[in-house]
Amino acid sequence: MARPYLSGRAALPLLNRGNIKDRSVSKPPSRNNILLAALYCEVFLMSKGEETRLRIVAAAAPLFNQRGYEGCSIQGIMDATGLEKGGIYRHFESKEELAAEAFDFAWAMTSSRRRQNLDSISNPVDRLKQHIANFVSRSGFPGGCPLLNTAVDSDNGNPVLRERVRKALRGWQTMLQDILKEGIRDGSIRKEIDVSKVSNIIVGGLEGGMLISRIERNDEGLHAALEHLDAYIESQVRQSAKTSQKIR
Amino acid sequence: MARPYLSGRAALPLLNRGNIKDRSVSKPPSRNNILLAALYCEVFLMSKGEETRLRIVAAAAPLFNQRGYEGCSIQGIMDATGLEKGGIYRHFESKEELAAEAFDFAWAMTSSRRRQNLDSISNPVDRLKQHIANFVSRSGFPGGCPLLNTAVDSDNGNPVLRERVRKALRGWQTMLQDILKEGIRDGSIRKEIDVSKVSNIIVGGLEGGMLISRIERNDEGLHAALEHLDAYIESQVRQSAKTSQKIR
Repeated sequence: MARPYLSGRAALPLLNRGNIKDRSVSKPPSRNNILLAALYCEVFLMSKGEETRLRIVAAAAPLFNQRGYEGCSIQGIMDATGLEKGGIYRHFESKEELAAEAFDFAWAMTSSRRRQNLDSISNPVDRLKQHIANFVSRSGFPGGCPLLNTAVDSDNGNPVLRERVRKALRGWQTMLQDILKEGIRDGSIRKEIDVSKVSNIIVGGLEGGMLISRIERNDEGLHAALEHLDAYIESQVRQSAKTSQKIR
Repeated sequence: MARPYLSGRAALPLLNRGNIKDRSVSKPPSRNNILLAALYCEVFLMSKGEETRLRIVAAAAPLFNQRGYEGCSIQGIMDATGLEKGGIYRHFESKEELAAEAFDFAWAMTSSRRRQNLDSISNPVDRLKQHIANFVSRSGFPGGCPLLNTAVDSDNGNPVLRERVRKALRGWQTMLQDILKEGIRDGSIRKEIDVSKVSNIIVGGLEGGMLISRIERNDEGLHAALEHLDAYIESQVRQSAKTSQKIR
């Protein structure tokens, strides 16, 4: 092994999140883990500077997500990385640039967990339901959903961060809409649905349920969202067998 | 008039939000405006110190809501009120206490707008739908929904503010649950519904839709939530005429 993997706490989010269990790539990466596998491979090909940059991003991501942009101090990132201020700013032009990279990192980790086990489900409706179950049952990232946190945090005067959040939301919606379109093509989903509206209802329902659960510090909001979205998908999105037979 | 009303920008949220149009209380306050009317009356009975305290809260509320706890500086509040630091801290023990009062103020203003025109609607189902329409169409408070903002902002280490947010959420849910219970009693709402779950679905759907709309800076998320919740209420909450006749 030419270079050790990310060390210390910076490596934890990469190694301990159920995606890459150890350093030996014994199995080829599944499509779901493609991003992390790419990251994993990249680390071995990285220059020392690139590796340090990633280590800073990985350490800063939970701090920004927990404390917000204003609440996350450079001193906190220095403490987490063991680097001096100059050592951090050698890799990033500004705190804003570091925060944007940290958000992308947090979102990639969170999305990866929410997409786990989807590839093995061939039916698009059941895949949507598994994604919703993943959202509810798999803890996201330290500090909670990065989309929710950073959307609120960046809303007043951080255009770079706002744009990253918008891109993340659109990526999530596109993932859902691709599943919906696949279901329309294969006849498992009603062709009358508006894919954009359905993806908004799923994203909004999940994020709103998560907000309630965060305020109450219990699972009720999330579980209400899960039950409601499951029932909605079964009654309004899935092509019923009866209608499906008619079409055939 | 014994004492002038709140002056300057501190008075704007009270006077220009469609609840109290001018200083003459020419009509008796509706039940919807009871909180603001009480506030309005109280101002005339206030001591000079109480009036100044309210003026600080009213000026600080949009700043905290827009910038967050960390991002809102005492200098910003000094600029908005024209008071010195000592003049502010004479009325509040800490920034935390002022932020908590400011949240309560912002939430009271927001809730009041979302409850407008509900009293004139006798049918509980239609009243729920009007509340949802109010949420979608009436802009809340400068900086967006105080519940969403402050929930995220206070989640990591501000227990006083967190408790205020929880109280606000519970007040909203109780309001919705009271309407649902009234509908169950008068036969307009299905008695099988779980009022707690339905209130979570409504609150979560609206807040999630608002999050999408804030990220995208358009109305799509909110309108998808409105359409979806209206359809949900009609199909799952309202007692259908057919079933209602059977019961009778």
